[in-house]
Amino acid sequence: MSQKPIVLYGLPTPNGVPIAALLEELKAVYPGIDYDVEYIDLSKQTQKEPWFLKLNPNGRIPVIVDRSRNNFAVFETSAILLYLAQHYDKESKFTFDPAKNPDEYSVLLQWLFFAHGGLGPMQGQAHHFRNYAPEDIPYGKKRYTDETKRLYGVLELRLKDREYLAGAGKGHYTIADIKTWPWVSRHAYAGIESLDEWPSVKAWVQRSTERAANAPASEALKKPEA
Amino acid sequence: MSQKPIVLYGLPTPNGVPIAALLEELKAVYPGIDYDVEYIDLSKQTQKEPWFLKLNPNGRIPVIVDRSRNNFAVFETSAILLYLAQHYDKESKFTFDPAKNPDEYSVLLQWLFFAHGGLGPMQGQAHHFRNYAPEDIPYGKKRYTDETKRLYGVLELRLKDREYLAGAGKGHYTIADIKTWPWVSRHAYAGIESLDEWPSVKAWVQRSTERAANAPASEALKKPEA
Repeated sequence: MSQKPIVLYGLPTPNGVPIAALLEELKAVYPGIDYDVEYIDLSKQTQKEPWFLKLNPNGRIPVIVDRSRNNFAVFETSAILLYLAQHYDKESKFTFDPAKNPDEYSVLLQWLFFAHGGLGPMQGQAHHFRNYAPEDIPYGKKRYTDETKRLYGVLELRLKDREYLAGAGKGHYTIADIKTWPWVSRHAYAGIESLDEWPSVKAWVQRSTERAANAPASEALKKPEA
Repeated sequence: MSQKPIVLYGLPTPNGVPIAALLEELKAVYPGIDYDVEYIDLSKQTQKEPWFLKLNPNGRIPVIVDRSRNNFAVFETSAILLYLAQHYDKESKFTFDPAKNPDEYSVLLQWLFFAHGGLGPMQGQAHHFRNYAPEDIPYGKKRYTDETKRLYGVLELRLKDREYLAGAGKGHYTIADIKTWPWVSRHAYAGIESLDEWPSVKAWVQRSTERAANAPASEALKKPEA
């Protein structure tokens, strides 16, 4: 079996999807970029096995190993996005050059960290209390769904009159969007039936979800046949 | 009143402390770096006022405004740390140069995002359920204290035989440590009485907390007299 330059350990969760989405975007633009996916079966606790903990001591997906750079391993969704952008997005199509466009780069990081430390963890807790908690905890359901809605309101402020989170003018599609939309598109898991309350967010999710790269990214992350 | 090049809007929380800590470190190394602090009184909801929301639509501290770079505003703790490192840590004393040391830089980012998206939000929820929630929710207390302990275990794996989170050999003190120790040092708020279970983490917190820059940083963040 021929090995591609990068291997992604993951599955189609809001943390796994952004990595495959960026890799497909890069693959469509730059020759030579390609990746294998190793599906990680959370029900088998594969992510807690010793070989995986050597790659990420936190025992979480996603992780990439870059075979073309001495098997360098990277964990944490946003750290992976920044790594791939630095090494493989030489024309800064999905990021900004920190040296040439430091302010746009900082704005991108601000929204990336907003998603990484705010929206992702808080919506993740809403998913937990609404779908996975073994007890019914109304306080937890309300707390995290309310906070998720508040954070969608922050995105609405940002996206009003813009197409994407970062970049001059109406912005352009970057790793900040790639990190964020897979969470917002799963709003129903957080007890939020519709995005109608946040029309700019709704349009942005649709715009982002319809990127051509996302169909092959979903395909790549599918659970393999047993 | 003379204005210093940077203004920090914050207070001494685990998100405010890292910014003052880094600014004091930079001030001790580089001539010309200095900052004012504007104390933000959360009890007065200052962070939700329109002028503040223009700086950070999320209505959260910390925020900096860089008067020396056209009043550029930065929000999200870790985005501020990376901004200050890029523009003001020219010798990469508290970071790594992304171009010259890309792998060390990526490792730093991995631990920065681990703290930003894992430890901070989860320990923050433990603080909430143990100190601020208006109802007693045993499930919430246990869930987030247990997760915080698990994350301290991940740090223990990393810090065994190391002094700091990132850097070759035993590592050196970077913005990854500066982001992380203000959370871990507040373990008692998360219902974790002692760090004895994680001896390497305990030693690292002490090592980090004792940095000379931290005393003036605390002083700078103090609530002003009425």
